[in-house]
Amino acid sequence: MRMRKLPWAEEYIRQADIVIKEQSKYKGTWKQKLSCTKLHVEIGCGKGDYLLRMSEKDTESGWIGIEKDTNVMAIAARKYDRQPQPSQNIAFLLGDAQALQEWFEVGEIDVLHLNFSDPWPKKRAHKKRLSHASFIAMYRQVLSENGEIQMKTDNSSLFEFSLLQFQEGGWYLHDISVDYRRISHDEDAVTEYEQRFMDLQQPIYRAVWKKFPYINTDKKKR
Amino acid sequence: MRMRKLPWAEEYIRQADIVIKEQSKYKGTWKQKLSCTKLHVEIGCGKGDYLLRMSEKDTESGWIGIEKDTNVMAIAARKYDRQPQPSQNIAFLLGDAQALQEWFEVGEIDVLHLNFSDPWPKKRAHKKRLSHASFIAMYRQVLSENGEIQMKTDNSSLFEFSLLQFQEGGWYLHDISVDYRRISHDEDAVTEYEQRFMDLQQPIYRAVWKKFPYINTDKKKR
Repeated sequence: MRMRKLPWAEEYIRQADIVIKEQSKYKGTWKQKLSCTKLHVEIGCGKGDYLLRMSEKDTESGWIGIEKDTNVMAIAARKYDRQPQPSQNIAFLLGDAQALQEWFEVGEIDVLHLNFSDPWPKKRAHKKRLSHASFIAMYRQVLSENGEIQMKTDNSSLFEFSLLQFQEGGWYLHDISVDYRRISHDEDAVTEYEQRFMDLQQPIYRAVWKKFPYINTDKKKR
Repeated sequence: MRMRKLPWAEEYIRQADIVIKEQSKYKGTWKQKLSCTKLHVEIGCGKGDYLLRMSEKDTESGWIGIEKDTNVMAIAARKYDRQPQPSQNIAFLLGDAQALQEWFEVGEIDVLHLNFSDPWPKKRAHKKRLSHASFIAMYRQVLSENGEIQMKTDNSSLFEFSLLQFQEGGWYLHDISVDYRRISHDEDAVTEYEQRFMDLQQPIYRAVWKKFPYINTDKKKR
């Protein structure tokens, strides 16, 4: 999502405590900082809608949003600040996901979220996709052994690409839906952005990958 | 697809040469019988539309359709007989796919097609799905080393199930589309049945699995 430069954005981020300036300082101690045992990280959190809602829904977990666009990050931070009762289990990091390994210790993250990432439709830009092999290799490092990656998108081409890339990387497809919202998933916040596609009757695609095919006790219950 | 009993069906099949009565007789020699080097088999060929069109489009290959419903098979055979110039590279087998290994030699089939198979929506009937683990294990036996399984369906639940089942079985997802007909694929016949979903703007899901991740020279060209 590209947008017009906001004159107040940089200054806003400078003074906003919720935007962590020294990302590497907390490497290995994010769970202490956010007082949680389970750490969720959203890469490309945009204006922060998903993160803010989820941090309220699931207060036991810690929620970190990464965004590289200064303007968008400023809007997310302001949204956070304007909440009547801001959650304490949340943090924003301004910067490129390329730095993931500088900010997070090996195995520190439990769930990585890729929500409606930029589809980079042109073939030559596919390497910029957040599900490109080079990113996937990084995710493996910072994810815990039983950790998982949850992806949602409205873009069929990005989704298909991602399924093949994760397979190439040796990941295990733990769950998949080619029409995720045909069933209600109350535990998983619907953002306004996502709602727009649902209103247009367009399917939401979702996949969950794990490093290994752990035996999942949920399966027995189904 | 269940249908009313057709009084002429059994007798029609008895006299129709295109419906092979002694399926096991040709085990290991289907390619000779159909004068081809590449053998395609469609499991659950229904009224035969896909098979008849493909056998005309790709006359170099042999095309075998398996169907267990006598009435539906009779309609397919009659369609074949009524063609002005019936293809010689085609055969129909009446019976249950469970018998696949009695009819085909190990590695004899090059491409297996599962088109719009019965979705068996109820959980307890999932074992009847043609992409259930028990069927998949059979397919592995009769498929050639570089062979593949092509699946098309309009049913999201069946598609998701199939992706997970094939993964469990150790198959390699060679290609996937969650909206196959958004791009034209002239090489792959659109049946009337499929066209109905397309007319309703419903997506067609498609996946191709292989036994192993062979290096595909096509990829380099893309």
